[in-house]
Amino acid sequence: MIIRRMQRIREAVVLILLTICSKAANSKAHWWRPETGEAWGYCLSWRLAVEANNIRAWRTVPTECLRHVETYMIGGQYERDVTLIVDNIWNYVDTITLSNDGFDAWILDVDDTCISNLFYYRGKRYGCEPFDPLGFKAWALSGESPAIPDVLRLFNKLVETGFKVFLVTGRDEQTLGQATIENLENQGYFGYQRLILRSGAYKGLSAITYKSAIRKQLVGEGYRIWGNVGDQWSDLQGECAGNRTFKLPNPMYFIP
Amino acid sequence: MIIRRMQRIREAVVLILLTICSKAANSKAHWWRPETGEAWGYCLSWRLAVEANNIRAWRTVPTECLRHVETYMIGGQYERDVTLIVDNIWNYVDTITLSNDGFDAWILDVDDTCISNLFYYRGKRYGCEPFDPLGFKAWALSGESPAIPDVLRLFNKLVETGFKVFLVTGRDEQTLGQATIENLENQGYFGYQRLILRSGAYKGLSAITYKSAIRKQLVGEGYRIWGNVGDQWSDLQGECAGNRTFKLPNPMYFIP
Repeated sequence: MIIRRMQRIREAVVLILLTICSKAANSKAHWWRPETGEAWGYCLSWRLAVEANNIRAWRTVPTECLRHVETYMIGGQYERDVTLIVDNIWNYVDTITLSNDGFDAWILDVDDTCISNLFYYRGKRYGCEPFDPLGFKAWALSGESPAIPDVLRLFNKLVETGFKVFLVTGRDEQTLGQATIENLENQGYFGYQRLILRSGAYKGLSAITYKSAIRKQLVGEGYRIWGNVGDQWSDLQGECAGNRTFKLPNPMYFIP
Repeated sequence: MIIRRMQRIREAVVLILLTICSKAANSKAHWWRPETGEAWGYCLSWRLAVEANNIRAWRTVPTECLRHVETYMIGGQYERDVTLIVDNIWNYVDTITLSNDGFDAWILDVDDTCISNLFYYRGKRYGCEPFDPLGFKAWALSGESPAIPDVLRLFNKLVETGFKVFLVTGRDEQTLGQATIENLENQGYFGYQRLILRSGAYKGLSAITYKSAIRKQLVGEGYRIWGNVGDQWSDLQGECAGNRTFKLPNPMYFIP
């Protein structure tokens, strides 16, 4: 009697498990996380729209997407996305025939391209809190941003291949120059041609305007910009953007 | 005795369920579907890279992503993505003050922007099979592409607001002109300013070149292009792209 009852319970358990598994495999359940009450599907759409440059000038991550962005950034998918893009850049680099004149150039952004500010943004609820200039300055001065491994790997390949690599950042030259140089060094970025920070002349300009002007100067010096990699669309738009541009993911903040 | 045993079994069941639920909520389990052996995380990365224009000139969807793209296209997330983008366009439209000169223009692509080819691509394994020009021509001639509801909703708003809406398509004018007109009509697209198909003069040109030339003509006629919506980056790049461009998702094919 007991055994039969146990048998029935076991069967019921298996049935429940199968139902749950099939629910989990079902796409609708997959996109939605009812256990947090969060609109997972909405946040997937929001993040895709950000990466495809459809949503612009957003100030903060939608609060309901906190868990989504956290999971994305630290759960493995962000790294996976970066790896796939870097692998594609790698393939593109392999198609380029360099001249011997020393003017084959490549541009990399710094924040959340070469080095990661994830630890900082963790404390800012992954971008659910508005930008905090003083907080970010303190973080940048600490020089503790770790390298993004795949980008460091790409950087080393570019340098070894013979590209002149320019690191172009919107960071303020006067206050953050030294800390940025040291941070890049302590993370293994050696052999770049120039680190270009925002000098007084470009203060207050949008990233598109400032970075366009820098790139225009480089082209004026005779450089051919083969590639340009950044985590913001404002790194990749405007004049002299480069022969190919590559957008790394960043769902935590927007720079115009 | 029996009751205590049942109690314990119940507790065990609850524990198992909680474990499964937490596994399902865990990001790694979320991105990976072991039951199909498919690299879900890789396909998410691939699709994001396509939408951010990092991967270009791809011929077919990676075979291992068939199930992923299918689930994306018919499981609800594609519609969700389109809705969010159209809602954003809507907000943008509401910020525009139209002049009364009749030259406020908007550009919409046709295939997989105004009308959907999902039914056709279902038969082509959602883009895992290479482009089949004859097959697609037969499909287009049938005039059975349904409207994408959110885009039709946007189209009607644009027309009602007073925009001159130009539908610009790479479809061949001579062979597909009549079928396209009829298809748009049977799906409720009334009141557009002009449907511009590819005439003989543009045969063999890339979409970027052809569509740039068309937009340049319109701007030459005096039109101000406020917005430009397409499912391909080649709809949105090149000259006179428009004041704002919006990329609708399409993980099934790439047009250069």
